[in-house]
Formats: sequence, structure tokens, C-alpha cells
Amino acid sequence: MAKRTAERTAGEFELITRHFTRSRRSAAVDLGVGDDCALLRVAPGMQLVVSSDMLVEGRHFLSTVAPDRLGHKALAVNLSDLAACGAEPLAFTLALALPRGDDHFAAGLARGLFAQADLHGIELVGGDTTAGPLNICITAMGQVPVGQALLRSGARPGDDLWVSGTLGDARLALEVFRGTVVLDGQAFEQVRRAMELPEPRVALGQALRGVASSAIDLSDGLLGDLGHVLQASCVGASVRVDSIPRSAVLASQAPDLQHTCLLAGGDDYELLFSAAPAQRQAVAAAAQGAGVAVTRIGALTAARGLQVVDGHGAVLSQTWAGFDHFKS
Amino acid sequence: MAKRTAERTAGEFELITRHFTRSRRSAAVDLGVGDDCALLRVAPGMQLVVSSDMLVEGRHFLSTVAPDRLGHKALAVNLSDLAACGAEPLAFTLALALPRGDDHFAAGLARGLFAQADLHGIELVGGDTTAGPLNICITAMGQVPVGQALLRSGARPGDDLWVSGTLGDARLALEVFRGTVVLDGQAFEQVRRAMELPEPRVALGQALRGVASSAIDLSDGLLGDLGHVLQASCVGASVRVDSIPRSAVLASQAPDLQHTCLLAGGDDYELLFSAAPAQRQAVAAAAQGAGVAVTRIGALTAARGLQVVDGHGAVLSQTWAGFDHFKS
Repeated sequence: MAKRTAERTAGEFELITRHFTRSRRSAAVDLGVGDDCALLRVAPGMQLVVSSDMLVEGRHFLSTVAPDRLGHKALAVNLSDLAACGAEPLAFTLALALPRGDDHFAAGLARGLFAQADLHGIELVGGDTTAGPLNICITAMGQVPVGQALLRSGARPGDDLWVSGTLGDARLALEVFRGTVVLDGQAFEQVRRAMELPEPRVALGQALRGVASSAIDLSDGLLGDLGHVLQASCVGASVRVDSIPRSAVLASQAPDLQHTCLLAGGDDYELLFSAAPAQRQAVAAAAQGAGVAVTRIGALTAARGLQVVDGHGAVLSQTWAGFDHFKS
Repeated sequence: MAKRTAERTAGEFELITRHFTRSRRSAAVDLGVGDDCALLRVAPGMQLVVSSDMLVEGRHFLSTVAPDRLGHKALAVNLSDLAACGAEPLAFTLALALPRGDDHFAAGLARGLFAQADLHGIELVGGDTTAGPLNICITAMGQVPVGQALLRSGARPGDDLWVSGTLGDARLALEVFRGTVVLDGQAFEQVRRAMELPEPRVALGQALRGVASSAIDLSDGLLGDLGHVLQASCVGASVRVDSIPRSAVLASQAPDLQHTCLLAGGDDYELLFSAAPAQRQAVAAAAQGAGVAVTRIGALTAARGLQVVDGHGAVLSQTWAGFDHFKS
């Protein structure tokens, strides 16, 4: 924690000491929590990769989420950004505003956060804690060989368009919370896990360096995020909606709802990436090595614009707004 | 901004585009705002230095502060952390929660932020913007030659204790806002500037590398922050309260108020550092080079504990709690 944390009320200070201080260090960390700054080592020939996300109650997570799942997700969404660049995660800072000295909440948050950190071999190196409306701001740092980062701008006409995992379950869970969809207990728990416990595709991102031509992580919905790639790469795309991978739970829903969840879902935290057709074997090998399924869902085109076609090749005319978390 | 910013409401997106996007880049920035992550270059032989601070309305700033001053301060308090480590600032991320699409506020905030960034030659490289209770989280990154960072833990018995600038004006301004002190307009404006427009001692921090034995930036009050140094260095200290530099405005107040502002003030953002007596000329040269006054205010002792003595050498028996911003 940065210096200003230590002089809070005794209650807050104890929270920090008890839950967010650990002695473990990764090899990249020369100095962690406890001084004005953290000191890290970026390996020779590597670029530093940085991503920062802020999570606000009611907008990025519901008040019903368990604290440990919130801790998991807060770090996971940042690691998903690093994954989309093909980076190896190194460390992260946490700035946390808590409305009250809620020990149960802080303990759960820390537990989920550190479990995710341990899974990826990274350490909390600093940050801040303050009283205030609940707000979780994490800055994740990683490294990538100079010039090898996967960017949004590298897609070329003729490239295949790929996606990892399955899409749409998180949005389906949100619709259950909204009361527009009813699922049985087991199905609901499955899609709720997708919403609350996303798995950032860190290993896949690194395996795709030198293979994929562009990548982005899916947080705002497929069409919205694909739009960023098309704009950055000055290309168009055609997406086969029937090819988009989905869970059995989502596949059992009405077609319109499936399309909404798949195309404008949000909170997927899967990788959307492009690669030349000559790279298909390399993509398959990268996915197998990372233990993640990948699926070809379309292709990039020289003609600008974004077409979504159904199983008969007919163009879907409906438009979907980009997902704006709980405000969409 | 990170990817999730682009699919907010049109109003928010326009705010970001209009106020927080610039094309300027520093030499250390390979890729700035606009992809999933930023890419930075840490020079060979340098360690990455990272600090993260979160500012919450009512706790770290008053609602009366002008937006451009708030932008200045939000970045300045992070640069002050880098300064305390002797680091050269490189770049920063901004995560911002705004309660409403207030264009005037965002424009002012950006103006103050970028003016401070320009002064230190650094660039905004990414972050996040969301709707939510006002919250400003900045993560500042810098670099320092490996092993040369100034830490809290390097102070030795017999070292001189130094402080930069003057202390206590920010706390005096807070007392005016609280209604416990009345100042005339010009005096109030002076201390208010100290509170709202702190100048991080970035040049001084770098000049003190190899000269100072320890350093910390003063954010929670002299005694509280000195306590961190004493604990980290396993030493004690004796501080001459009459030697602590203060403005003419503060010097004209009652002695008890002066002592409170000087010793437990908070929000000073000056450097407190130690150096061997043999380094006095080097300290003076560093201060002159940085254009900042420095003052010797005491010495470190082998005996643990912290003594404050008056002009007659008598030990002050009053205790002061560490400053907890607006909650103290």
C-alpha cells in the first residue's frame, strides 16, 4: 500500500495488514508493499505492458456477488487485457475504496484476489486503501518481447476470425438477475459462474504471439469489440452467427436471446483474434497448449463494415448496441 | 483508456475523446491510449517504479476545489511518491469514476492533469472511465537505476534529518475551511494554494540519489511519516520543532496551532529525508540544483523513539495523531 494507508483509522489499518499483506514475491518484484513505491524488474528486451480497470458497484458488479468472486473478477478483467496483448503478467497494484470497515468483505475480496494472483504467479506490489463508496481499481503490469505485443491494429483482409471459449453466458446470467429469463438452479449456477468467475486467457494470449495478427479481449460484446479491431485495422468482417461457440444452456434459449447474448453480451473475457489461414495449424497448437478451445467464426474483408450472417448465408439486419455492463 | 471505456454512453465517450485523448508521447511510451494495454520502455539498467493513489471526494479533496486544481493534485500526489524514491517519472494511467457527464468538470480536470504532466514530461497512457461516485485513481510509473532508489529503510543513527520547502500551510487551509481559523483573503489564498496545488519534489528526489540515506514524502503529517522511516530503519529521531520551516502566514498563528500544522498537518507533499553529516554540502548542492529550499530539522538516534524538542531543548510532551486527511 502507498504511504497514506498506514495512518487511517486503526480498523482500516488492521484490514490492510491482515488481509492484503503477504510476504511472497515473484521474481520480477524487487520491492513490494510497504514503501512509497514498488520496484519491479522488466527483463532485457521486454516492453512493459500496463492496463488499469476500475470496478464500481451496480455498474460492473451486482451487490449480490460474493466478495471472493468479486476479488477474482477484479483481477481477472485486468489479466484479460494483458492476455489480449500476449503479455506475461508480472504484478499488480490495488486501490480500494471501502464504505465501511467490513472485515468479512475485505477478507473475502483478498481471498479471491490472491487465489487469482497465485494462479498466474503474480503479486500485489502496492496501492491504496481509503474510506469511500465501494470502488476497486487495479493496475496490472506485464511484459512482452519488444515488438511482439498483439494489437488491435494488425488484422488483414482474408484473415480468419477466431474466438476462445464460449460466449454469451455472462449476459444470460444478467438477464436472469433482471428477471427476463428463468433458469433452473444448475443452469443458473453455470452461467452465474461465467459472469462472476471469468478465466482470463493468459496462456493462450502468450501462445498466440507471432501467430495471431490482432487480438482484443471481449468485455463489451462481440460486435462492439470487433468494431474496435476493424477500426484500428482499417478492414471489414463477416461473422457467421451459427459458428459462435455457446454453452448448452445458452443453446437451449430462444434464437433472438441467443443472438443478443452472443453478439452484444459483454463480460465474456474471451479472446477475439485474427490470423492468416496459413496459421490454422499454429492456432490449433496454441489453443491445445493453453488448454482452451478456439473456434473460427468468420473472416476479415477488405470491404469496410461488419456483416453478421445466419446459417443460410442471409445477412442479419438487426443492430445491437455495444454492451455497457449493467446499464445496457 | 482500456477497452471498456469505448462503449459507455455517447456522452461519456465524448468526454474521454475530447478531454483525455492527446497525440503527444514521451520517449518511453511505445503505445499509449487506445488498445487493451499501454506499452512502455524501461531503459536498460533501470528498475520500474510504481505508485497508485485513489482520491475520494470529502476525504482527499473538498467539493469546493476547482476541477483543474483537482487534476493537478491527483497527479502531483503520485509524482510525490515517485520523487520520494528518487525516480524519473515516465507515464501514468487514470481510472476515473464520474457521477454525471459533467463536461465542465472533465475539461477542468483534464486541463490541470495535463499541465502537471507536461511540467514533468510524462504522458497519460491508458486507464478507464466509468459512471459512479467521484473517484480518481492514478497509477504513476517511473524508473530509477537498479539499486539506487531512495527507501524508508536506509536511515542510520547520526544522520541529519532534512525537509524540503515549508510545512503546515495545507493543514492551516483545512482549518480555515473547518471554521476554526480565520485568515484574510491573501493569506487564505496562499495556504489554499499549498493545499490544492502541491508541487511534487521530483527534481530534488532524483538529485538526492546517492546523497540521502532514506526518504519519504510527507502526506500524513511529519510525525506519522517520520514514524514509518524510524520503523523501517530501526532508529529513533530527535526533531527541533523551531527549526521546521514554515510560511510567514503560519508563523503568525498561535504556537499550538503552528505545532499541530507542522507536526501533524498532512498534505504537505514535501520530502523528508536523512543524510550523513558528511553529505551536507552535497545536500545543499542537490537542493540548489533542484531549486528547492531544504532545512535541517533534527537528527537520527540509535535510541528508538521520537522526541520533539522546543527552542530551549525541552521535550514537548503532547502527542499528535497521524493526519487522516479530512477525518482527523
